[in-house]
Amino acid sequence: MTRQSHIDSLPTDPASGWVLAHVLRMDGYVPGEQPRDGRYVKLNTNENPYPPSPRALEAMRAAIDERLRLYPDPLATPLREAAAERHGVGPEWVLAGNGSDDLLTILVRTFAAAGDAIIYPMPSYILYRTLAEIQGARPVEVPYQSDWSLDAARFATEAAATGARLAFLANPNSPSGTALKPDAVADLARRLDIPLVVDEAYADFAEADCMALVAELPNVLVTRSFSKGYGLAGLRVGYLVAHPDLVANLTKVKDSYNLDRLATVGAAAALADTAYREQTRARIVATRARLTAALRRLGYQVPDSQANFVWCTGGPPATAVYEALKARGILVRLMRYAGHPPGLRISVGTDAEIDTLLAALGEIVAVAGGSTS
Amino acid sequence: MTRQSHIDSLPTDPASGWVLAHVLRMDGYVPGEQPRDGRYVKLNTNENPYPPSPRALEAMRAAIDERLRLYPDPLATPLREAAAERHGVGPEWVLAGNGSDDLLTILVRTFAAAGDAIIYPMPSYILYRTLAEIQGARPVEVPYQSDWSLDAARFATEAAATGARLAFLANPNSPSGTALKPDAVADLARRLDIPLVVDEAYADFAEADCMALVAELPNVLVTRSFSKGYGLAGLRVGYLVAHPDLVANLTKVKDSYNLDRLATVGAAAALADTAYREQTRARIVATRARLTAALRRLGYQVPDSQANFVWCTGGPPATAVYEALKARGILVRLMRYAGHPPGLRISVGTDAEIDTLLAALGEIVAVAGGSTS
Repeated sequence: MTRQSHIDSLPTDPASGWVLAHVLRMDGYVPGEQPRDGRYVKLNTNENPYPPSPRALEAMRAAIDERLRLYPDPLATPLREAAAERHGVGPEWVLAGNGSDDLLTILVRTFAAAGDAIIYPMPSYILYRTLAEIQGARPVEVPYQSDWSLDAARFATEAAATGARLAFLANPNSPSGTALKPDAVADLARRLDIPLVVDEAYADFAEADCMALVAELPNVLVTRSFSKGYGLAGLRVGYLVAHPDLVANLTKVKDSYNLDRLATVGAAAALADTAYREQTRARIVATRARLTAALRRLGYQVPDSQANFVWCTGGPPATAVYEALKARGILVRLMRYAGHPPGLRISVGTDAEIDTLLAALGEIVAVAGGSTS
Repeated sequence: MTRQSHIDSLPTDPASGWVLAHVLRMDGYVPGEQPRDGRYVKLNTNENPYPPSPRALEAMRAAIDERLRLYPDPLATPLREAAAERHGVGPEWVLAGNGSDDLLTILVRTFAAAGDAIIYPMPSYILYRTLAEIQGARPVEVPYQSDWSLDAARFATEAAATGARLAFLANPNSPSGTALKPDAVADLARRLDIPLVVDEAYADFAEADCMALVAELPNVLVTRSFSKGYGLAGLRVGYLVAHPDLVANLTKVKDSYNLDRLATVGAAAALADTAYREQTRARIVATRARLTAALRRLGYQVPDSQANFVWCTGGPPATAVYEALKARGILVRLMRYAGHPPGLRISVGTDAEIDTLLAALGEIVAVAGGSTS
């Protein structure tokens, strides 16, 4: 028999009898478009428009040799120590992950069983729902208020009423770019008797962060990413900071060797290059201000952003503008949340990329007769 | 308040109230020793003694540039396509993982809920038990027979009796180095009505493999690793081959971007360098034969190995020999399984490393008066 004939004789769908029901019925997370041909001005997945630290690239180049035949350090110790030093804690407060997504998965598996509730504000990072679905847990979504503040009392009441075992808070939040101030996060944490994961993937672009809360409030866990502030989305590195008793348990749940040798040394070197991070941050923050002002002139409502993207609603129609931009080789993210009109989440690119975007947007809006200028 | 005083005011163990009970009571997987100082002759974690393919190193060097700021391909498409081509299947039959451990985790989460049974032979890869524990699943262990064959009828009966949802079979097996022939694996798969994961981490050193079964038997899923046969343990790459309906569901459970850019291109290049893989394989197989014969002369029972390590029992006492070797700067793996005497699992190193090992063993055994030569 040829292989083809074997395939023909298979059951119509061998998955249906074996895959867990909650997985079978999932759609699965759909990441932002990642075109492989590089022809686009890519402002859709919040990558840093600037290259990673040259020191990080050099450290990785120096690590590409026969040592790759050896397993990596299971705890990514050089990175762990660098992160601990940055935040003024001992290494036992830090756990490294294969991207902060890996850490979010580990957190779910450590704190929430199938059937348990996981609570988070909405609109926010769609992956929280996906992570709950993968675990067979119940996603509980608490709406942000119209000004992107959070009703902490309502959140805590919902958490208690649903028996939630874990709370996520993206801060700064996506898609809004807004952030709760550390005092507001501390207030929220004090109202909760469950772990509150403060997902600080975008904190490198914010005015404040919640890292100091970890030592004060044992239910606050903070995650960080190298994908945005360090321009290393392609390397898959993140870390979390939490009480050592929590880190010890999270460590049991992670894969034995979740970070490779190159990611470990590259991220540690990037972390140490403070000057480079500050320099790219300053450029992005300046471009963000210019982009925000221009989008507001086009008629969009754009909250002041604490991240490396801006959120546009209420102006020229999002779906049509998204399509027109894509036709011109510019990718932004069209986001749809139930109960909300679609919006455009636009990453802060280089100044040249943002000039290209704004010129295209000006033309698109003029053609549509929707210009408000 | 200083940070230190906050730490003092924390609850004794904030984990106890929040961490899931099945995680809290786990010990956690303990990987083989990974000394960071490089002073040891390291024969304890089955790394390849030879460097990775120069083409793989070159491909990674060429990928260390500003493209690292971009997210990787979510499905590691270049690697997926290379693996599909190697095994004569379409890319939709392949899923790449952050090491095959990542794939084993995804498999558990896709097929077995908390409370479900997961079945595998014992002694085998200890991680299967850990993966079951992390998931809150019930590990069901079926003993190998004394000649390392498996009673397939008994295994199937146990699977049915326990309501197992997933079966693992390390083939070649660790610590024994033995392998069931593909016909025996097919027979086992036909007796099971659940997914049978054939973990072929060591198949690059074996005379036969089970990859061809995947197209015939939809409940056979095969995992592969780059850690052993390709000398890339430090890069964290593996893949699985399974029916596309299963791959589609497993894809929902994986992290969105589970492989980084460097791992994807490095592994794809390594896979394509067939000549290099065959060359290092031949050297390891030759050294394995010499090592096996020498250990038997020392009085050990050593099954014929299909892997890049050998398993030694019944000769000079394992624990004392392990300690004496370590004192001489040689690390091997002392393995203890309930109901079995401890044994030594020794990775096949370079010829020079094995000469060093055998010289040390000769002295240790002579001093102990236990030499049988």
